[in-house]
Amino acid sequence: MIKKVLLIVMDGLGDRPVEVLGGKTPLEAANTPNFDALVKKSQCGLMYTLGRGKRPGSDTAHLSILGYPIQEYYNGRGPIEAAGVGIKLKAGDVAFRGNFGTVDSSWNCIDRRAGRITNVAPFAKALDGTIIDGVEFIVKPGSAYRAGVVMRGVGLSANVSDADSHNAGDNIHAVVPKDNTKEAKHTANVLNKFMKYSYEVLDKLPENKKLEEQGKLKANFLLLRGAGKFVTLPKFSQKWGFKNAACIAGGGLYKGIGAFLGMDLINVNGANAQVNTNLEGKFNAAINALNEYDFVFLHIKPTDSLAEDGKPIEKREFIEKIDKYISLLNKVDNETLIVITADHSTACELKAHTADSVPVMFYCNGIRNDNITKFGERDFAKGSLGILEGKDIMPNILNIMGKLPIIGA
Amino acid sequence: MIKKVLLIVMDGLGDRPVEVLGGKTPLEAANTPNFDALVKKSQCGLMYTLGRGKRPGSDTAHLSILGYPIQEYYNGRGPIEAAGVGIKLKAGDVAFRGNFGTVDSSWNCIDRRAGRITNVAPFAKALDGTIIDGVEFIVKPGSAYRAGVVMRGVGLSANVSDADSHNAGDNIHAVVPKDNTKEAKHTANVLNKFMKYSYEVLDKLPENKKLEEQGKLKANFLLLRGAGKFVTLPKFSQKWGFKNAACIAGGGLYKGIGAFLGMDLINVNGANAQVNTNLEGKFNAAINALNEYDFVFLHIKPTDSLAEDGKPIEKREFIEKIDKYISLLNKVDNETLIVITADHSTACELKAHTADSVPVMFYCNGIRNDNITKFGERDFAKGSLGILEGKDIMPNILNIMGKLPIIGA
Repeated sequence: MIKKVLLIVMDGLGDRPVEVLGGKTPLEAANTPNFDALVKKSQCGLMYTLGRGKRPGSDTAHLSILGYPIQEYYNGRGPIEAAGVGIKLKAGDVAFRGNFGTVDSSWNCIDRRAGRITNVAPFAKALDGTIIDGVEFIVKPGSAYRAGVVMRGVGLSANVSDADSHNAGDNIHAVVPKDNTKEAKHTANVLNKFMKYSYEVLDKLPENKKLEEQGKLKANFLLLRGAGKFVTLPKFSQKWGFKNAACIAGGGLYKGIGAFLGMDLINVNGANAQVNTNLEGKFNAAINALNEYDFVFLHIKPTDSLAEDGKPIEKREFIEKIDKYISLLNKVDNETLIVITADHSTACELKAHTADSVPVMFYCNGIRNDNITKFGERDFAKGSLGILEGKDIMPNILNIMGKLPIIGA
Repeated sequence: MIKKVLLIVMDGLGDRPVEVLGGKTPLEAANTPNFDALVKKSQCGLMYTLGRGKRPGSDTAHLSILGYPIQEYYNGRGPIEAAGVGIKLKAGDVAFRGNFGTVDSSWNCIDRRAGRITNVAPFAKALDGTIIDGVEFIVKPGSAYRAGVVMRGVGLSANVSDADSHNAGDNIHAVVPKDNTKEAKHTANVLNKFMKYSYEVLDKLPENKKLEEQGKLKANFLLLRGAGKFVTLPKFSQKWGFKNAACIAGGGLYKGIGAFLGMDLINVNGANAQVNTNLEGKFNAAINALNEYDFVFLHIKPTDSLAEDGKPIEKREFIEKIDKYISLLNKVDNETLIVITADHSTACELKAHTADSVPVMFYCNGIRNDNITKFGERDFAKGSLGILEGKDIMPNILNIMGKLPIIGA
């Protein structure tokens, strides 16, 4: 009987054949004996995460795989990022992704990342709790120059423009409402007041005086984008009938998704979403977590980043590096289902996400395995699960566990 | 990077196993070395054009493949045929397919095709521009005895019965409204007046006197059927983000579809939609068109007609004839995606369209090819695209080109 689940998502794992890899994809070209041994005992298929002909972002793809239809639960990146920096969102909150940046006195943007400043805690603290026209601003530091920002109050709308110009050199845009509702007008109005206030507070902050003295760029502006209204959403473990759920990830977005869905975040030293991330630590943390949690989500990022950089050989090598730690999964007991997949394909040639399908495999004791011998996109076309979508993953997991409700009698 | 698309549709290509072909379909039985060489480098699948269990017409199937959902864009064959004879339709127009036929003085239909008269230009001209009760009739000659007919005016409906009895020997039906709206009543009333008027004009036309003297059947009646109201529809190239698009076809319906969707029609001498059509000329025209157009649609008809006539051996032979010209595609540059498919299956045994799936293949540089070795219905079941529908074709093309918008971030 299967009682626990380990879901491993390798970001952007799928790809297209590459000439330097002899017409194979990075995954097909990779020497993956440990993956392959699991594949042989797995039931396999190919997945169009958001459906055929839909090109997924990482956020929408993960929500879909974890069983939250994006039509119902996705309202932009803001709420996910805010959850990722530890803000507990409430229904009606409007959340943003924020960057601390540098502007001159006439609000021309000099640097969108304030010289890639590495710690913005004091700057976030200076703004956190600001109240303007009855609206509270919650501002928490994220990694490096990033912040999560939430507006909390009555009658707010997420249908407002970005203040972030997205280009250094441009003047900061005033926020404008994107519809004619009084909520959108009110929200834009409050945001414009907040921008003015935050510039005044930040520009004269002692920390900025110090930066100025060191000849560095000031973090004197908070650039906001990706407004999204938070809708109450069911906690992952409750929605799918698990005792509890844990998320192990290096990247901020993926921690955000875990937090957003009410998973416990397990931090691993050196898990940084970079090529030198602590894979061994992450795998060991995941295996240990299965002693306490009955659902563990493990996210691995660099497969995507390397493809976005157009590096097929490095992507293949990184897959081979992951493969080494797959042997650690031998320690997992036979009451555990291991699901291995990707959120979307990222094509090295295009340096971009694509709508190409990704492999998905379900491995556990007693699974109807397909005897496929290699972990690869085209090998998985032979899998008995056929073509799936992201929304099929959680129901298939429950099915394997014998936990699906019966329809009829 | 893929920048151009050549879409080749072989009408009614799919079929069922036939005893005289040793239990193979005409496509499977055909010796197709040039197709097979492309297949090996293609990503493949099987397509239910309108969805599983839906038997497609050629018009609905093509609209679906070209990305126009028929629920939204298909209003009968009339508007497509009218576009095919060069009429520029306007929103609100009601269009018909027309035949010039022969009736006696009490309107008994003697021949629905006026003895298969080959040129109806003078007859169409005699009626073109007629205005009855404020409704203008646009009448343009089609191939042989055919015509495209459009009613233009205020408050028209397409919900009226066919005047065409569809059987020689029967009396011409009066047109009746199919609902109780004043628009349908008005349209039927005007149509009945037009029929009377057109008989009077045509019957005494000098051209008909000549035919009578030669002992031939007169073209003294215009039989109308397939009423459809034209809805404004986006131009294909704009809808899908191409610079321009060209259509190369012999059959009137397929030219009509191209014109209907705002494609440029490229005429090829001897392209007549018959078994002796100028295949070499069509393939060369398509390859040349790719220098000017970034989307080229090439249609080949006789695969369907031969199956409708119940001729599997001739269908196999015609597929082998097409195969010879497939080698010309070697001239296409590596920035071009070649998509090869059919609109529907036509079963020789049933002499009819069926809802059986059809093969579909995508060939270009860097495609995730399936290494399938034969062009055939059952071989394509192994393709990694799985089971597609017509609506999936255009998004998949955009995906391969890296032109799909991202959903999420």
